[in-house]
Amino acid sequence: MNPCTMASPQVDTDGDGRWNSIHNRFLSDAKGKEADVIFMGDSILQALEHTEVWNQWFSPLHCLNFSIHKDQTQNVIWRIKNGELDYVDPKVIVVHVGTNNVEHTAEQVCEGILEIIRTIREKHPSAYIVLPSLLPRGQYPNALRDKNSAVNQLLKEKVSNMNKVEMVSIDKGFIQNDGTISHHDMHDYLLPSNAACRKAFEPIYDLLQQILSEGEPEKDLTPSE
Amino acid sequence: MNPCTMASPQVDTDGDGRWNSIHNRFLSDAKGKEADVIFMGDSILQALEHTEVWNQWFSPLHCLNFSIHKDQTQNVIWRIKNGELDYVDPKVIVVHVGTNNVEHTAEQVCEGILEIIRTIREKHPSAYIVLPSLLPRGQYPNALRDKNSAVNQLLKEKVSNMNKVEMVSIDKGFIQNDGTISHHDMHDYLLPSNAACRKAFEPIYDLLQQILSEGEPEKDLTPSE
Repeated sequence: MNPCTMASPQVDTDGDGRWNSIHNRFLSDAKGKEADVIFMGDSILQALEHTEVWNQWFSPLHCLNFSIHKDQTQNVIWRIKNGELDYVDPKVIVVHVGTNNVEHTAEQVCEGILEIIRTIREKHPSAYIVLPSLLPRGQYPNALRDKNSAVNQLLKEKVSNMNKVEMVSIDKGFIQNDGTISHHDMHDYLLPSNAACRKAFEPIYDLLQQILSEGEPEKDLTPSE
Repeated sequence: MNPCTMASPQVDTDGDGRWNSIHNRFLSDAKGKEADVIFMGDSILQALEHTEVWNQWFSPLHCLNFSIHKDQTQNVIWRIKNGELDYVDPKVIVVHVGTNNVEHTAEQVCEGILEIIRTIREKHPSAYIVLPSLLPRGQYPNALRDKNSAVNQLLKEKVSNMNKVEMVSIDKGFIQNDGTISHHDMHDYLLPSNAACRKAFEPIYDLLQQILSEGEPEKDLTPSE
């Protein structure tokens, strides 16, 4: 059994029930708003919501952001199965999760993301699914960076022929010539700064605009890596 | 033995060495800049650095912020003992840490903060130490909220007669009449929003201005709870 594909809530290790509170807030957010785009994932996307880039680019596109710090693939599957996408009719769902599955292999994480795609498809068969690649992490080269890179490669192959699923490379430019990541791009070597979000998420913004304004883009016209 | 008082680095559970990278960056930051105020602590203060309030109020006061997500009291003690305050000559050090010591008692956490004060005093005998109270957390009442409140009470008594140590209550106004905390104040029920930072940290800003412009304030003239 692959733990990355089995729906499960995040364990409340702190004991203040915050994860469940946030999930419940997303449920009520979903009921009250008409969102064309839903972001779902981990702290990378959660942090994006608190940048200028979000206010300038994504907020005007009628986006909701259902992302939670530390979430792993199985947590996102649980949240989808427990209603977060039940009261919305999005045209696009943007998913970034997997970097927190630190105990799992690249193959397991890739399967977890594919399970998220299947779970979304059950709820929204015609919605477009956009997958920003997993970002590198850590100041110096490390096993998690290598694994995220491997997840990206595996996933790219798996989704290349899927209809209405588009993977977009956002991980370029973070690793400098000497192999380090600068704190200007990631102050904690995990979350992109506002300036880095602007670089990384511009192709996501472009693709969302294209999908929302023209409908489904032709597969061979979408941005290539 | 109290684990909250025994200097120790944060355990690198993820495996990408980010905590150590951030510590080393603080060491080099300290060498290059003349800072009148050093903030040291956990994600509450780390998040403060990424708000408008920081840019507007604190950055112009020549502040450095040596705060790390998830830090506990013993991690801050370790960082001080390992050089973060060795190359600076601050007039004030602002400390907020303890809310992440989820496994320890209020008494242990209070002792941890008192040990931080002693450790700072060894390096900077004449610097002013400002202690914003620990914030409440979680959408609903929970044991961690109660413990943080107990830490605040214990610490207030302990520091009341200490010279150049000032505790400032910043935790009022978060808990609503029904006992909940709003996501407008804390989007994740832990970190204060920009608007909440403005309310919570205004008395800190006022006190810093007072100390920096007039020197040490009279003990009985400082803001009371």
